[in-house]
Amino acid sequence: MRRKDKEIKDKELIEQIIQNAQICRLALAEGDQPYVVPLNFGYRDKTVYFHSATQGRKIDMLKNNPKVCLEFTTDLELVRAEKSCDWGQRFNCVIAFGEARMIEDNDAKRDALDVIMAHYGGKGGDYSDGKLKITAVIAVKVSTMTGKGLG
Amino acid sequence: MRRKDKEIKDKELIEQIIQNAQICRLALAEGDQPYVVPLNFGYRDKTVYFHSATQGRKIDMLKNNPKVCLEFTTDLELVRAEKSCDWGQRFNCVIAFGEARMIEDNDAKRDALDVIMAHYGGKGGDYSDGKLKITAVIAVKVSTMTGKGLG
Repeated sequence: MRRKDKEIKDKELIEQIIQNAQICRLALAEGDQPYVVPLNFGYRDKTVYFHSATQGRKIDMLKNNPKVCLEFTTDLELVRAEKSCDWGQRFNCVIAFGEARMIEDNDAKRDALDVIMAHYGGKGGDYSDGKLKITAVIAVKVSTMTGKGLG
Repeated sequence: MRRKDKEIKDKELIEQIIQNAQICRLALAEGDQPYVVPLNFGYRDKTVYFHSATQGRKIDMLKNNPKVCLEFTTDLELVRAEKSCDWGQRFNCVIAFGEARMIEDNDAKRDALDVIMAHYGGKGGDYSDGKLKITAVIAVKVSTMTGKGLG
């Protein structure tokens, strides 16, 4: 990060930004072609969980290259000013890096889906075997993450 | 896109989503390592404009690999339900691909900054030569884009 004055170093605050984010963005790379999609997610113990259909571009890319970058932004607020160069956005943002892995075990899948449901205030626990079979559940263990924003 | 039923094909609606987005996400790749950052932006004639400091990770990556992916999301709304599998998010989203190029000419930089200012309801037109010198202005000509969501 270039602007060290905007860096958030408090680990609890960084985790709070992740927990407060409504969705996250997942960036992937296929060769040198980047791709980014918005995702529902859950977060526990430095791990981001999300789910998907078992087929599609995102899953194909993850199988070929599990390296990902995740972005979480909250508290976005436009700041107007007299001079153009003084306009800006206030925000809190976390950028995280890690590797994605597919969760295959059904009990582990249910547990991960509960983490996602909990993120949105849901109870979870009611996933049929049929639904689990057609749902890919992915875990990204975060290796590094940085926070930037209001602090 | 896997879910063809959710695809937005109306080009005007796709452009409207971009114009309504408060910020966009820019995904880049360095070798096989993806990276994603939130950005203020402006949009005109199939071109996305954004600005940045002249140094930093984003600029270094763009100089080495100009291929980018941009994401715009609006109208995000959590949908709760009785069963976990019926929960979801309503949203409109555009994913765009293109190549980034640095704008070097000062008049072209001013014009691009005006497009960004206009996106946020600002007037623009008041950029000093000194500010222009320390500001990188980037254009991404969109080659393909797809819309997904409420339609």
